[in-house]
Amino acid sequence: MHYPEPISKLIDSFMKLPGIGPKTAARLAFFVLNMKEDTVLDFAKALVNAKRNLSYCTVCGHITDKDPCYICEDQHRNRSTICVVQETKDVIAMEKMKEYSGQYHVLHGAISPMDGIGPEDIKIAELIKRLQDNEVQEVILATNPNIEGEATAMYISRLLKPSGIKLTRIAHGLPVGGDLEYADEVTLSKALEGRREI
Amino acid sequence: MHYPEPISKLIDSFMKLPGIGPKTAARLAFFVLNMKEDTVLDFAKALVNAKRNLSYCTVCGHITDKDPCYICEDQHRNRSTICVVQETKDVIAMEKMKEYSGQYHVLHGAISPMDGIGPEDIKIAELIKRLQDNEVQEVILATNPNIEGEATAMYISRLLKPSGIKLTRIAHGLPVGGDLEYADEVTLSKALEGRREI
Repeated sequence: MHYPEPISKLIDSFMKLPGIGPKTAARLAFFVLNMKEDTVLDFAKALVNAKRNLSYCTVCGHITDKDPCYICEDQHRNRSTICVVQETKDVIAMEKMKEYSGQYHVLHGAISPMDGIGPEDIKIAELIKRLQDNEVQEVILATNPNIEGEATAMYISRLLKPSGIKLTRIAHGLPVGGDLEYADEVTLSKALEGRREI
Repeated sequence: MHYPEPISKLIDSFMKLPGIGPKTAARLAFFVLNMKEDTVLDFAKALVNAKRNLSYCTVCGHITDKDPCYICEDQHRNRSTICVVQETKDVIAMEKMKEYSGQYHVLHGAISPMDGIGPEDIKIAELIKRLQDNEVQEVILATNPNIEGEATAMYISRLLKPSGIKLTRIAHGLPVGGDLEYADEVTLSKALEGRREI
């Protein structure tokens, strides 16, 4: 045993986090020892509170501390558009943009037959149910631009086609600030395919 | 506000740790949300316990959950040698080596006039006091091989010279597995200076 038990337990806890190996964990643990006791208590409380007081919004599936979430409850938001994303983190990325003021629907995953995830394992049924009240006029499919995300977008679009609701997919192309030289072929071909008149 | 409050508080807590910026903090916080509740509770407990149940050994200054620490209490260890190090982490580094079986003395810093740290700010007086029982025959100065560490070693060696106790300094030279080509001039000159007959 190199460390007194309370330290080694803290190191073990830090090591359970992603991207934190034994050396970083030890550095963080020793840093904690030099923090003010109040700060450490706040940290411990924040951990427990985040785990205990958060749940998923029963309407859109976004992570929230009250149900329905602040986005679903906001009366100023446009209720005729639903943006379908894979994860709760994607909602946050969209919200950071501050340009979208519609609703969201979090699928909590994407269809991936390789991992045994089918359409019934993600929140597609909940999405269909939300569309039945006729208020929604557009569904934006903002799943990730990879195989699973594309497959999911394709699946949902086929499912919703008969309903007559407008279906859109976020654009693929070169990221702003990117470099044509370093773009991969698929992105470049998508960028060319999606070209617009100026 | 992009995040529900319990998450943003957790992110803030993670951001207080060294080397963790807003993106990593958010990634860690979302990882915590997906951890088992027991694991999160253990993490929170480990934080509080590490902060509350650890103190410094009154004999050697090493961090410990009981006083005196397990090193000072161990009857099998050689009591005639004291290895003087700057930080409690240095004790752990030495212990990992599994070759030293003497005692330690943690200075909790090094003399650094630039930072306003003088000899009275680190545990030198405590070291002198420990040497008065005549049991100690050798003091190994294992402070860091930088300006502050050298100054501290020099200061202690001058202070202890009259006592007649054997004083040694850990060797400077090329690290094992290192490359002569990439060694800096000072290290190389120290390595040459400290050459030994084979």
